[in-house]
Amino acid sequence: MEDDIRVSHSFGRSYVDVLSARRGDAKWVTDAVAYPTSVEEVRKVLDLAMQQDLAVIPWGGGTSVVGGVTPETDNHRGVVTLSLERMNRTLKISPRDQLGSFECGIFGPDLEQRLQARGLTLGHFPQSFEFSTLGGWIATRSSGQASSLYGDISHRVMGLTVQTPGGEVRWERPIEEATGPSVDSLFIGSEGTLGILTDATLSLSPRPESATYRALLLKDWKDALVFLQEVAAGPVVPAVIRLSDPAETRLTLAGREAPLGLKGVLERTYLGYHGVAQGGTCLGILGFEGDRSAVDAGWKRAVPLLARAGGIDVGRGAGESWRKERFSLPYLRDLLMDHGLFVETLETGTAWSTLQGLYDALHSRLQEAARSLRLPLFIGTHLSHATSHGACLYLTLITQQSPEGVDEPFTTLKRAAMGAITSHHGSLSHHHGIGSMHRPWVSPLWEGVARDVLWSMKSKLDPKGLLNPGKTLPLRPQP
Amino acid sequence: MEDDIRVSHSFGRSYVDVLSARRGDAKWVTDAVAYPTSVEEVRKVLDLAMQQDLAVIPWGGGTSVVGGVTPETDNHRGVVTLSLERMNRTLKISPRDQLGSFECGIFGPDLEQRLQARGLTLGHFPQSFEFSTLGGWIATRSSGQASSLYGDISHRVMGLTVQTPGGEVRWERPIEEATGPSVDSLFIGSEGTLGILTDATLSLSPRPESATYRALLLKDWKDALVFLQEVAAGPVVPAVIRLSDPAETRLTLAGREAPLGLKGVLERTYLGYHGVAQGGTCLGILGFEGDRSAVDAGWKRAVPLLARAGGIDVGRGAGESWRKERFSLPYLRDLLMDHGLFVETLETGTAWSTLQGLYDALHSRLQEAARSLRLPLFIGTHLSHATSHGACLYLTLITQQSPEGVDEPFTTLKRAAMGAITSHHGSLSHHHGIGSMHRPWVSPLWEGVARDVLWSMKSKLDPKGLLNPGKTLPLRPQP
Repeated sequence: MEDDIRVSHSFGRSYVDVLSARRGDAKWVTDAVAYPTSVEEVRKVLDLAMQQDLAVIPWGGGTSVVGGVTPETDNHRGVVTLSLERMNRTLKISPRDQLGSFECGIFGPDLEQRLQARGLTLGHFPQSFEFSTLGGWIATRSSGQASSLYGDISHRVMGLTVQTPGGEVRWERPIEEATGPSVDSLFIGSEGTLGILTDATLSLSPRPESATYRALLLKDWKDALVFLQEVAAGPVVPAVIRLSDPAETRLTLAGREAPLGLKGVLERTYLGYHGVAQGGTCLGILGFEGDRSAVDAGWKRAVPLLARAGGIDVGRGAGESWRKERFSLPYLRDLLMDHGLFVETLETGTAWSTLQGLYDALHSRLQEAARSLRLPLFIGTHLSHATSHGACLYLTLITQQSPEGVDEPFTTLKRAAMGAITSHHGSLSHHHGIGSMHRPWVSPLWEGVARDVLWSMKSKLDPKGLLNPGKTLPLRPQP
Repeated sequence: MEDDIRVSHSFGRSYVDVLSARRGDAKWVTDAVAYPTSVEEVRKVLDLAMQQDLAVIPWGGGTSVVGGVTPETDNHRGVVTLSLERMNRTLKISPRDQLGSFECGIFGPDLEQRLQARGLTLGHFPQSFEFSTLGGWIATRSSGQASSLYGDISHRVMGLTVQTPGGEVRWERPIEEATGPSVDSLFIGSEGTLGILTDATLSLSPRPESATYRALLLKDWKDALVFLQEVAAGPVVPAVIRLSDPAETRLTLAGREAPLGLKGVLERTYLGYHGVAQGGTCLGILGFEGDRSAVDAGWKRAVPLLARAGGIDVGRGAGESWRKERFSLPYLRDLLMDHGLFVETLETGTAWSTLQGLYDALHSRLQEAARSLRLPLFIGTHLSHATSHGACLYLTLITQQSPEGVDEPFTTLKRAAMGAITSHHGSLSHHHGIGSMHRPWVSPLWEGVARDVLWSMKSKLDPKGLLNPGKTLPLRPQP
């Protein structure tokens, strides 16, 4: 097998991964990449792995930013990375039942194209949409940018087929059932440690007949939060609702060229008219989609709430620009890295009542950590994925790359952030997953018998511990 | 302990349970009823059960209609029924986060009263609402009558504390997280076989500012199904949507007194005007609730769809009557049993595309079974709990009681129904659970490694097999 195929299947897309790959500094390289085309071939790979004691790393699009696909192991004779890219067939689309079944290697754009041709959508648009797969979304318990309306992927899975070294697990539940514990939910979020997801049945929505995205400007972060919570509560739930804090707003506007007009609008009308210091202004994106009457009702309700929060509508042009460019941030990250910058993102979720406390703790701990490294640190933050219960905070951290090694300032900043998260009711991840990078903070969540149960399941499904070693699961309890 | 307390905690509310209790024919009677008031006392009961080898049957409201609370066991020294009724405290209600935490012994009306006083609702109204508990709902994966809008209980559980002989399991996830497999989902639907649910955190909705329920008459069952599916698809989702088939419609109208006026309306206007034979008419209930604008939008969309399906709106009076009386069917059942009748219900769910096939199969198999018993059988059916994917079919079976024994015609009819369900894509239960009665049909759903995994979990949580023996779980795999 060509080396470049093995190497390109040995890194995810975190800052550490990208920098390691660029510097040719590969700590772990997979021994082989398998491209099964059927369940039978997946089972052959698993059987071979059992016989030969090979670790198996499932590979969807390889976009993990938390070390979810690194072929790391000291305990096996070798590592095979199992790419699902040739398993991308449509098994069934039923517009009548609003259900569809697909093999799990299908990429986002293909899936949406096939659904939209039948008048349907999954409505799942993570930032990695172009390069990530259905199986990857389910394995990482992913949340799309429009999750306020469509829910996260765990709400969409109505059936699942999983290949484990111990055998196949298959479940389908097209509508709610009162029939005992749900076995498929064990595999949602399992990140390849419990089995290889080969196909899934999904709850679908009608392809939206209408969609309107608008950019908003709000004078004050805290007033804006009140507005966002009011809008997220519905009854017409927006598809996308997000708010950049003043720092991220400045970064976003600085990067805009004149044709977009947003910066001009901002300077000419809002900032001038209201006399607000640019420093405090927050850029928001609000999008409704679906049935035309629902979209209209959503805006009708949002407009007076926006006015009461001291905000203005900058219009559809800027909103649609965001929508068109919404998958482009990772490209910008790579460009900035070319110029010697450290760029990393992190995200967490919490309830509305603990959101500001978590925001403050993250900022102060991260700046403190940067001071300890004697580095200037830019933090741009936005709130997104809002529900009636809470929202996600998404932070972009920019500082200088360390000339030697790849781990600093990554490790120090990650530790600082996780400290703030665990002490301020944040989740270890809202939609990036756990992988190997967040794993040190997982074990305390699985205390006592819960951890025993998880590992007894793991032992049944994967008796030799071959599946994605070192990822996601809390440490194995000592016997 | 008084015998009557022990006896009254030894039966659920199925036909077989009620008839057995009335005839003083108790095959199983629990040895003791424990009323713990705290987690510590629950743990003491479990510790004692471990020491003394006692089976433990958790008891919420005791309304199981599938043998979920029968104290049956030949493998233990005794049985203790653990009533949660003294654990009914509010732990926290957060209107800001739309979350609430309660001890699991709280009854439906108490829970709603405490929530509504804070401007909130859980929106969970199973037919047993008055006599069932939060813990019972979660343990049976219950679905309320308004589940089209509020979802079933599994969508509402954001956190759970469970006491198992192996220790406590606690989980909380106020908003979506990408943090590995979800351990709380293992206990939803576990019907007391994996642990005792002691408290839960729930996703709440605003108390509806408006609610309108109307009765409808539709000329034809199949046209009516099209209408129901269109309405259930939203965008404004109804709270309640149900449709009685012609047989259930006749039964319902026959039982109405003049003051309601529905029968009169039917005879005077609809049947006369359209010249439709009464035989084919279907009674529907459609209710929207929530924000006033959403309710208005829901009706605005439903009215022309109803007209297109050849239906008419009989008005709010009849709709509100249904709403007021919606928990009363079980009382009627007991009254009919006083008069020597057999009355039993069964329910199943399926996707829209398989719904009519399942309906036909259920009816033909049940009538065939009744003929084999030489009994006349009345079957009244309604569709309810509709989503964009499918709906529940709810059947009421009325025939004569067998003078000897309680098992016939119950056993023969149950077997016939389960045969139709398993061969026509129905679920073993949509919202009643599995208990002991549906258990013979569960094992085929858990094949191979899935069953091994479930039982390895069970063994960790309940090493001596004390928890609700003989319920819900597929049979233990042979070693």
